[in-house]
Amino acid sequence: MKFQRASLWLLSVSLLLPLPLVVNAETASVLTKAPSRPKNIVIMIGDGMGPSYTTAYRYFKDNPDTEEVEQTVFDRLLVGMASTYPAGVSGYVTDSAAAATALATGVKTYNGAISVDPQKQPLQTLFEKAKARGMSTGVAVTSQINHATPAAFLSHDDSRKHYDAIAQSYLDTDADVLLGGGQDYFPAPLLAKFAAKGYRHISHFDELEAVTAPKLLGLFAPVQLPWALDDPGAERLSTMTTKALALLSQNQQGFVLLVEGSLIDWAGHGNDIANAMGEMGAFANAVEVVEQFVRQHPDTLMLVTADHNTGGLSIGAEGQYLWEPAILRSLSASPDSLAKQAMEAELWKEALGSHLGFTPDHDEFLHLAKARMQGQEAMSGAIKHLIDKRTHTGWTTSGHTATDVQVFAAGPAAELFNGHQDNTDLANKIFSLMPKPKKN
Amino acid sequence: MKFQRASLWLLSVSLLLPLPLVVNAETASVLTKAPSRPKNIVIMIGDGMGPSYTTAYRYFKDNPDTEEVEQTVFDRLLVGMASTYPAGVSGYVTDSAAAATALATGVKTYNGAISVDPQKQPLQTLFEKAKARGMSTGVAVTSQINHATPAAFLSHDDSRKHYDAIAQSYLDTDADVLLGGGQDYFPAPLLAKFAAKGYRHISHFDELEAVTAPKLLGLFAPVQLPWALDDPGAERLSTMTTKALALLSQNQQGFVLLVEGSLIDWAGHGNDIANAMGEMGAFANAVEVVEQFVRQHPDTLMLVTADHNTGGLSIGAEGQYLWEPAILRSLSASPDSLAKQAMEAELWKEALGSHLGFTPDHDEFLHLAKARMQGQEAMSGAIKHLIDKRTHTGWTTSGHTATDVQVFAAGPAAELFNGHQDNTDLANKIFSLMPKPKKN
Repeated sequence: MKFQRASLWLLSVSLLLPLPLVVNAETASVLTKAPSRPKNIVIMIGDGMGPSYTTAYRYFKDNPDTEEVEQTVFDRLLVGMASTYPAGVSGYVTDSAAAATALATGVKTYNGAISVDPQKQPLQTLFEKAKARGMSTGVAVTSQINHATPAAFLSHDDSRKHYDAIAQSYLDTDADVLLGGGQDYFPAPLLAKFAAKGYRHISHFDELEAVTAPKLLGLFAPVQLPWALDDPGAERLSTMTTKALALLSQNQQGFVLLVEGSLIDWAGHGNDIANAMGEMGAFANAVEVVEQFVRQHPDTLMLVTADHNTGGLSIGAEGQYLWEPAILRSLSASPDSLAKQAMEAELWKEALGSHLGFTPDHDEFLHLAKARMQGQEAMSGAIKHLIDKRTHTGWTTSGHTATDVQVFAAGPAAELFNGHQDNTDLANKIFSLMPKPKKN
Repeated sequence: MKFQRASLWLLSVSLLLPLPLVVNAETASVLTKAPSRPKNIVIMIGDGMGPSYTTAYRYFKDNPDTEEVEQTVFDRLLVGMASTYPAGVSGYVTDSAAAATALATGVKTYNGAISVDPQKQPLQTLFEKAKARGMSTGVAVTSQINHATPAAFLSHDDSRKHYDAIAQSYLDTDADVLLGGGQDYFPAPLLAKFAAKGYRHISHFDELEAVTAPKLLGLFAPVQLPWALDDPGAERLSTMTTKALALLSQNQQGFVLLVEGSLIDWAGHGNDIANAMGEMGAFANAVEVVEQFVRQHPDTLMLVTADHNTGGLSIGAEGQYLWEPAILRSLSASPDSLAKQAMEAELWKEALGSHLGFTPDHDEFLHLAKARMQGQEAMSGAIKHLIDKRTHTGWTTSGHTATDVQVFAAGPAAELFNGHQDNTDLANKIFSLMPKPKKN
């Protein structure tokens, strides 16, 4: 990767420099191997994945048997950071809709807006620009596909809450691949309309492998997909990403793919470090799938970022200079699942201890028993609190926070994203790399 | 700046590329204006200044009368990020001593260590390497000069707590400029020894202007300098930085200067957003002083980073998608000072409201009155809590957290620091830019 990126820099620098630069023929032939503009663009969003998430993930994945702390795919790909604030009317802390609108259109808007401006007028999206250039488009996400982030790339609505209208609007997007959750928003009559437009609809994950051509509508859960922690080995996001890349790259005009690790944010809203790390793992694996694709297809630009931070996660809490992820590494199910099991099991203490990978002490069990009396939600909260206490994990909010997010990139023109920028700059830089629209 | 950095990239890329590269004479003459190795190195550490601090500072400084959010000096200079974990024996969350040792020596050590390794053996520091090359060295900090960060650049000790021994050890450093607080650690006999070594000692800030040559020992407070908020217009860190640059640049062999915004960390430990923003402002102004110096002296590399995060600061808290810094902009003193005044004043409610810039409501005054009964410390805590509530600021700890910190750079070879790296890499990259040591 290093050599490829260096040579790209040379190319882009030579374009920027107001200086005569003589490059001999041998050099030029090597340099042209990596084009200066991408044919394909993959945008990957870790929803809510602020710097504390990527850092925590490094230490969560660290092999405790070595002195070295191993680097992650995020470390390999870091190039810059981005501010995430929405339009002034919504203050400094963005929601996913305004942030996704910024990334999809290059324009700031109010929280809740799906690719409409503060006056509620539609904004042209990256996907629309791609379609105008004969490119294919697709999404692969772990939320329902009509959730705010994918919606801002595919649709326009004055409110992210109009889930049904957003699902309906996807009929008109001409998108080639739609993969994620959301069966509840796509009733039979709507599915029939998708079929009439030439979409194959699947709803079981094991049907995905056999699909060989777009258009594809794959809805694999009523709403969001299961937590990765409760779905070990499934690697749904990586599998959907791999399939989307295979289907979209059939278009010789290129493609734009949006991949979202949607549930990192949901774990953050739940102040749930166990699921946050589980979802980070699923997203990191999908990033590695795309990283590998970019290595094999040097005409593909990958851009990875987050839309905002969620939860005010901190690595260390309550005055302790410690973060101890060991128990997270041995968890065998999500706190929600552990709570459900503990509600149902007679020997719940033994069952819980075995799934947690450690035995809570006397006081901790007292606290858990009290929560169990109050019901499953309280029990889930108590388990998360226990894990926070044992790992020294801190949270400040059930909502979002405004800290800048990281930007990761590889492929043609990745260097454009070096340093600090605004989230709208990310979109506008991508737009600057697209060819002129086709005249139909 | 853009052109200068692009041409540097071209230079460094041309060194990396295993390719013939022909550059004509005109090009070469322009390129040599910016050397590939720096003559002078300025390291600036915002103690505790994680990504939430630089982001919050942007919104704190934002002009509310414009729709645009103005960029800060940190935005202009961002090039990468760094991990901060200490040696394995101390887990993943560093203290300032281990982090400063990493930055000063390129080696991980245990929390509390001052430039000694985990076996408590001394490690060669950047300042020692500089001295071996005939360069000058200096520090300008807002803590006592024998606090952990400057100590790791100047000294070796198995514990940061050995303040007296560390102060004593500075006699043997041959450092050219020592500016900050710490009068309590430099009694008359020690000062006499500094004088015998040729140091001019000053203890009043207004003596600084007249100093025209090293060696200089300036101690301007018993321990740390006053909060910037309580010292409006003084701009002590910028003034010390300006003087240090003037004195150190008298050495034609070059210099290494450490500047620390030490009290950002102290504000973080106190979960004090008012002072955090005040100290960020003082540090940002010092960074701008150095940025300007680098523009005028293209042979100077500036590297700005943080040693770690403090406090688990979050911009937004308690479920609110808001951060409202307006009241921070109108504060006229630190919470500590406001508490002291409120303890002493008879009409404390009126005085407090006037200094805060807003009038607390009935419930808020009830809470403040209760704290006032408990004493000044409780009153200061209540004022900070009120400011947190009004601004929607969150904290998770009185200690440090492990989130990666940002890296900012300008000048020759600034591009070396692009992307992700470890804090030890920062030191090792600087070492790679230094000339060979002189033979004495």
